Amino acid sequence: MNAEPKRRSPRAGGRAARHALRAAPLAADVTPVRAGLPGGTFNPLSQDDILAIHEAALTALEEIGLADAPPSGVEIMTRAGATLGEDKRLRFPRALVMQSLELAAREITLQGRDPAHDLHLSGSKVHYGTAGAAVHMVDVETGTYRESTLQDLYDAARIADRLDNVHFLQRPMVPRDIPDAQEMDLNTLYACVSGTTKHIGTSFVDAVTVPMCLEFLREVAGSDEAWRARPFVSNSNCFVVPPMKFATESCLVMEACIGAGMPVLLLSAGQAGATAPAPIAGAIVQAVAECLAGVVYVNAMAPGHPAIFGTWPFVSDLRTGAMSGGSGEQALLTAGCAQMHRFYGLPGGAAAGIADAKLPDMQAGWEQGISNTLAGLAGLNMVYEAAGMHASLLGFCLESLILGDDLIGQALRCVRGIEVNSDTLALDTMRSTCLGGPGHYLGTDQTLRLMQTEFIYPALADRSSPKEWEENGRPELLKKATARKEEILSQRSNAVFDAGLDARLRARFPVKLPVQ
Amino acid sequence: MNAEPKRRSPRAGGRAARHALRAAPLAADVTPVRAGLPGGTFNPLSQDDILAIHEAALTALEEIGLADAPPSGVEIMTRAGATLGEDKRLRFPRALVMQSLELAAREITLQGRDPAHDLHLSGSKVHYGTAGAAVHMVDVETGTYRESTLQDLYDAARIADRLDNVHFLQRPMVPRDIPDAQEMDLNTLYACVSGTTKHIGTSFVDAVTVPMCLEFLREVAGSDEAWRARPFVSNSNCFVVPPMKFATESCLVMEACIGAGMPVLLLSAGQAGATAPAPIAGAIVQAVAECLAGVVYVNAMAPGHPAIFGTWPFVSDLRTGAMSGGSGEQALLTAGCAQMHRFYGLPGGAAAGIADAKLPDMQAGWEQGISNTLAGLAGLNMVYEAAGMHASLLGFCLESLILGDDLIGQALRCVRGIEVNSDTLALDTMRSTCLGGPGHYLGTDQTLRLMQTEFIYPALADRSSPKEWEENGRPELLKKATARKEEILSQRSNAVFDAGLDARLRARFPVKLPVQ
Repeated sequence: MNAEPKRRSPRAGGRAARHALRAAPLAADVTPVRAGLPGGTFNPLSQDDILAIHEAALTALEEIGLADAPPSGVEIMTRAGATLGEDKRLRFPRALVMQSLELAAREITLQGRDPAHDLHLSGSKVHYGTAGAAVHMVDVETGTYRESTLQDLYDAARIADRLDNVHFLQRPMVPRDIPDAQEMDLNTLYACVSGTTKHIGTSFVDAVTVPMCLEFLREVAGSDEAWRARPFVSNSNCFVVPPMKFATESCLVMEACIGAGMPVLLLSAGQAGATAPAPIAGAIVQAVAECLAGVVYVNAMAPGHPAIFGTWPFVSDLRTGAMSGGSGEQALLTAGCAQMHRFYGLPGGAAAGIADAKLPDMQAGWEQGISNTLAGLAGLNMVYEAAGMHASLLGFCLESLILGDDLIGQALRCVRGIEVNSDTLALDTMRSTCLGGPGHYLGTDQTLRLMQTEFIYPALADRSSPKEWEENGRPELLKKATARKEEILSQRSNAVFDAGLDARLRARFPVKLPVQ
Repeated sequence: MNAEPKRRSPRAGGRAARHALRAAPLAADVTPVRAGLPGGTFNPLSQDDILAIHEAALTALEEIGLADAPPSGVEIMTRAGATLGEDKRLRFPRALVMQSLELAAREITLQGRDPAHDLHLSGSKVHYGTAGAAVHMVDVETGTYRESTLQDLYDAARIADRLDNVHFLQRPMVPRDIPDAQEMDLNTLYACVSGTTKHIGTSFVDAVTVPMCLEFLREVAGSDEAWRARPFVSNSNCFVVPPMKFATESCLVMEACIGAGMPVLLLSAGQAGATAPAPIAGAIVQAVAECLAGVVYVNAMAPGHPAIFGTWPFVSDLRTGAMSGGSGEQALLTAGCAQMHRFYGLPGGAAAGIADAKLPDMQAGWEQGISNTLAGLAGLNMVYEAAGMHASLLGFCLESLILGDDLIGQALRCVRGIEVNSDTLALDTMRSTCLGGPGHYLGTDQTLRLMQTEFIYPALADRSSPKEWEENGRPELLKKATARKEEILSQRSNAVFDAGLDARLRARFPVKLPVQ
């Protein structure tokens, strides 16, 4: 018989038990947070406010209209009932807008190459992902900026693929080492699609590149039917140049994408105080008006074509006119837009999680944290630019992307909210604990049950005591993120093409990434 | 006549004009954010949820009750209608609780030594400030922790005094260099009161120290009448030891404070999963029940005495049992409590802005940003521990306090919300801009008007472009905060006692801070 084992304190025993319990894997539908949790507890706009914004947007479409539609767009929209004025502006009668809203797709699915990553956009279901067109990478080790490359984009895709709370990858930065527009569009697709099996958003530079890129996607999918059955890439169309003008070239890209069965994001990216009215309400009015014009356009061309209502108004720092994506005003703009999306019952997206901070520092944390959380609480279906974005969208940072996963986890926990029922009210537990019980809740059945399903634990954020932290050598957050980055990037992509397909793609298309 | 001046670009000219405009001071009531902005747009609990929590709390008070009241408290509460069981627990009939709520003060003012800093607590009006009992200071330059001292407390008070968005100073840390309880209580008061003219919260260690400390406050005020007319210090009473036990000694402190005309904070600081039920709803139930017992206690002793309903439930990281104040669960707990305060119509307070992060890094930013913003949006009257708090309340950081001012500014901007009216809907501005106008909003009257009154500009957070940032030598956020700290601490306190008063105080009381 062995000697009495060294006694552990009861708390240490409890901790070991809890650690063991926590190590068991969880079914996807009982994890503390997940893609598609419904938001809607934050409502900065009253019902009257929403109606007033809707009315103002309709008036703007009727009386101001939009300039600069391409001839094809003029034809499509006038055929549906828009009128072209002598000032060349297309104006939209209210009835046309309302009819188009009737036709519009209300519940859409954005597919991933792996169906486990499909995003079901409806109601107030919330999804977070990357987006943007940063031109710089933030080098955390040196604290400097450099131009972004195709390899960076591929690395971002591979990292996003491994982060549970990053639900899709919209291209966050531009490969500055590929100057040719067509080659850039093609290689952007290659880097994203071979980097992650999650849904991908891209943004074609011009319509000329669309046919080749669609050929590429059909080849990856296996056939045109397979591609159209599960289009795993959507296109972000900056189809307007605010205020109230169509972006002629981008409209042609959009027409080409719709023709090819690709979901589109109707993106209106005005800047309050510069290209949109300075008041938050007015910026929302203009963005809603512009996106409603997009709804008319899309549904006149292809009724029910999957389109995301992309009111992305940004904020200016009015002292300088520069963008300030990390401001409280931005968080409100985005949340207000989410309420408008819910009012129309359309799948919607907007921007949050942008840091004005140049580095992933405390400022970046509060900027990304506040706007991501408010966007989710407002029930935004697609929270774009949610991770990795710095310098008011000019810089992307891989360490920040990784930390963003922890940050979004907390935002999602807030979205999940407070469940109130007879079990969670816990009167029975209180009774048995206080009346003759142990006087604490550490080991109760309820506590053990909830610790896995209700509480989210960060991957890299530190919750140790100062004493433990000292003993661990005072780990720095950014160094932990760099280590995680290197670990992920040392592994083969989850989404890499099989050798035969890759060879075919490289034979047909100007692929620049080396064979993996 | 002078030569033609060098032409500036139109944008640069506009920028100069905007900078000049911004330099003009603003009246306090038209600043973009201010103390007392009403919240209430974030509501994680439904009306049914609120009623269910209320009912469960009443049941808990009726059936479980609270143990360990001091004899004086037993007498006060049984005289009012509570019953003492054979198990020595005080139980509270529903009617008693409801009667006590009728008696309770609903709108209270927490005075500052300078009336400009008075806090009017009612409805969903939001105020942010410090609080806590940290035992460490975070040294940003070395990235290390050390014990907190009286000088640190004085420094924190002087810094808080200069920060617009820190509306009150509750003692955030314990002076570890003053071991004697009475001397610690007295010197805590001296450091806080001579450091800021904002409202001060303290927390007396035991009842024995109260008479001397009140003598001190009467001397500062000038007389007992002057003190009672404008009590500029409130006492934070941890009057319960959750679950459902009175803190015997702290109850005696509370009785002494009430007798001396000092506003009290009825603080219930359970920890979900340890000293409170693990579900968020259950932790709120228990905190509400405990604070309702406090309402009975206070109003049985002194009907209508100013008391803050201090449901401060914290969260455990259930893997370790350690506190996690920076979690999404914590943000929800605090916001849910704010809804309960509004339901009762009582002035309320809870904790937010706590970082688990050891240093003011990106993690600290999101932790503090998310919970502070949600607390404000939920309409919490007193957001305690809103700035400077690290290591799950064990560490306080002066640089973080300074950066917290910027962070809370953004939170307050979110609280201010979106104003919707015919001016902000901006249809007229859109018309004149788009139809024959300049095609942008940079110089419109509306933009210039709103830039001062609607947009908040951070003091230290960086919004420069990468190019400007490079040109400025890539300024680091924490270094800027340290420079600001040194600048403030090099100045004389705004709240320093005049020489005669200071001499009298030093003659009567064991003041440890050197003469300033």
